This record gives sequence, C-alpha cells and structure tokens, in this order.
Amino acid sequence: MRAVVPFDAADPKTRLADVFSPAERRAFAAAMLDDVLDALASAGADPTVLATEHVDVDAPVTVDERALTPAVNGVLADSDDPVAVVMADLALATPTACRRLFEAPGDVVLAPGRGGGTNALVARHPEFRVDYHGVSLRDHRRGARAVGASVSEVDSHRLATDVDERADLAEVLLHGEGRAVEWLQDVGFALSVTGGRVEATR
Amino acid sequence: MRAVVPFDAADPKTRLADVFSPAERRAFAAAMLDDVLDALASAGADPTVLATEHVDVDAPVTVDERALTPAVNGVLADSDDPVAVVMADLALATPTACRRLFEAPGDVVLAPGRGGGTNALVARHPEFRVDYHGVSLRDHRRGARAVGASVSEVDSHRLATDVDERADLAEVLLHGEGRAVEWLQDVGFALSVTGGRVEATR
Repeated sequence: MRAVVPFDAADPKTRLADVFSPAERRAFAAAMLDDVLDALASAGADPTVLATEHVDVDAPVTVDERALTPAVNGVLADSDDPVAVVMADLALATPTACRRLFEAPGDVVLAPGRGGGTNALVARHPEFRVDYHGVSLRDHRRGARAVGASVSEVDSHRLATDVDERADLAEVLLHGEGRAVEWLQDVGFALSVTGGRVEATR
Repeated sequence: MRAVVPFDAADPKTRLADVFSPAERRAFAAAMLDDVLDALASAGADPTVLATEHVDVDAPVTVDERALTPAVNGVLADSDDPVAVVMADLALATPTACRRLFEAPGDVVLAPGRGGGTNALVARHPEFRVDYHGVSLRDHRRGARAVGASVSEVDSHRLATDVDERADLAEVLLHGEGRAVEWLQDVGFALSVTGGRVEATR
C-alpha cells in the first residue's frame, strides 16, 4: 500500500510552544515522523513524506508548498491505486495499528482523531477527496457518501492520538514504543499525578 | 462473560459540574450507564451494576458502599470465573468494542483510558487485583506481572474515551450511537468549531 505522510517541516507542533523551544519542537516532530514511517514500513506499506520543504528522513520526500488539503488531494488525483494518508504526529502508531487501517474494508477507511480530526485514512475510490478544515471526520464521512464510496472506521486509541498538546505527551509516555518516547525521556519528561490527573512534566 | 459495571449513583460526573446541573449530571450518567449495559449485553455478556446505592436500571444491581477499588476487588475475590470490569461512562462503547475486549488473549486484558486510567479489563487470573488510584494502567500492568499473569491490551478509541469533561462530550456527539448522544442532543448540545478546535456547546 502506498502511504503518504504529510509533514510541516518549517514550524511544526505550534500548540506545543508552551512546552518546547522551537528547536525542541522540530526534534520531537522529527522523532514522531520517524516512528510513523517505521510503523508503516513494518506493516508492509511503502511510505513517502509529503513535506512543505525538504526534510532529512529515511523515506522518499515530495516537496509541495501548498496547504495540507490541496497537497493531499494532488496525490489522490494522481494515483490510480489505493493510497493511505497518515498524519506525522501519531507517535503511538504501531505496525499492528497500521495493519488494521490497511486491512479494514470499504472504499474509504477513516481512523478518527480525538476531536473530530481524521488522523489516517485509506482512499480506494477515485473520486474521494479530503478536506482537513474543521470537523474533518464528519466531512470525510459525508464526502465519501457523496461520491458513492462505502466507508468504514478503525477504532484505535493509537491512531486517534495525534500529539498536539501537553496532555498528549502523557499518552506518548504511557504507550510510545519508539524514538518519540525515548526523546521525551531523554529531555527529562516523566509521568506525574496531580489532583488525580496524569501529566507529563519535566 | 460476567461483566461488572461500577457506578457512582450519588454524585456522578463531578468534573462536568461546570456544564450540567446536578440533576442533569445524574440523567446523563444514567444514559451512559444504559448504553454500556446495552453494549455489554449485545456482545453476549451478562452485565451487573456495582453501585454505591440502589439505582433503577435494566440489570441486576449489587450495592456496595465501599470505594471503587475495594468494591471491585471484592467481586474479583469472590469469582472463580473470568470477570470483566467496565466503567459506566464509556458512552462510545459498542458491542464490537466489547467483543474485542472479551476475545483478547491473556490472563489479564486491559483497555487503557486516555490519561492512564483502566477503562475496562478482563481478569482471568485468580490472584489479579485492581488499584484504580493514580496511573492505574501502569499499576495494572505491573500488578498482573507480579502474580505471573500474561497481559494484553485492547487498542480502542471507544473504550479509551471515558466521559469526564467537556472535551469528552464532543466525542459523544461524534461517535455515540445510543441514549447518551440522544440525551445530549435533546438538551441542546451540538458540535461547534472555535479556533480550529471542536467543542460541544449549547
């Protein structure tokens, strides 16, 4: 399966600016990207990165300066085969979770992100297009139906957890198995419990 | 499979006090409990409620005034057969998600909750006991290993989503299929997008 991983190489993870320096944000985003590429390759996919500028990773990189939605739709329009689109900040992704995505039935497979996003998808219908603005999960459900594509959803906490904010770092510490969790631990993050809530602190 | 659903009948969902009146919290908690019981029964389980005081539901109720951990451990100590323990606020639970929990291998099966909780589990080992304080997922992983029990985890966004706070209500609106989402819609909640984030508002 062809798998495309969009990546903001210039200024990634802006919602973690209260936790990390700009250099740390870039390093952490790169570690997550590496983990996602590893999980996809181990699940038998052929991952490529779709980046806003050149990035140094162990996978082919296509540079497209457009915003996420038109860049991904460019890929979908150019492809005759099924394409997976997997976000670069799924630090909890495992080969097993990726295989569940690839093997789910349907012309369009959606892996919901917490908060109504679409963290991963498989497009097997030639007319399906993405729109990542707003509640994209709802829009993708509707968009698939509008072109007559059957839809299934993958129920995965690992794929639902895109790492955007401090609260998500606790999930990486709890469930991560790759470079992102190692990086977090190396810079001093650990789980702590404050007033019954679990947090990542350093 | 015997399935026990602990339920705080007196003052449920205190972290939703900024969203709901006390009467609304009780009604919403009861709707979620009904959804969980339905999903468990449809998945072939035999659900009972373990409540702090009597509650009017369509399932047998055992009243135990103790805190969650000792009450559940009382059930585990008294049972020779496998027991599932499933939280009452999993408003996204479906029969399919419950079957994945029941059918997972291992002496102890854990369904992680977002934030390090243990939203559902299956205990098939006579010595395994729970401790819901703190980062219970980590403690349950360790506790199972300490008694020589094999552990597996169920990767499910539906089971990972316990409905505790306002942000969780958006998940109910996005994915709910039962009484809880109906109740939310009836009292006027809908999804809205503010500054790129999805929220449940009324």
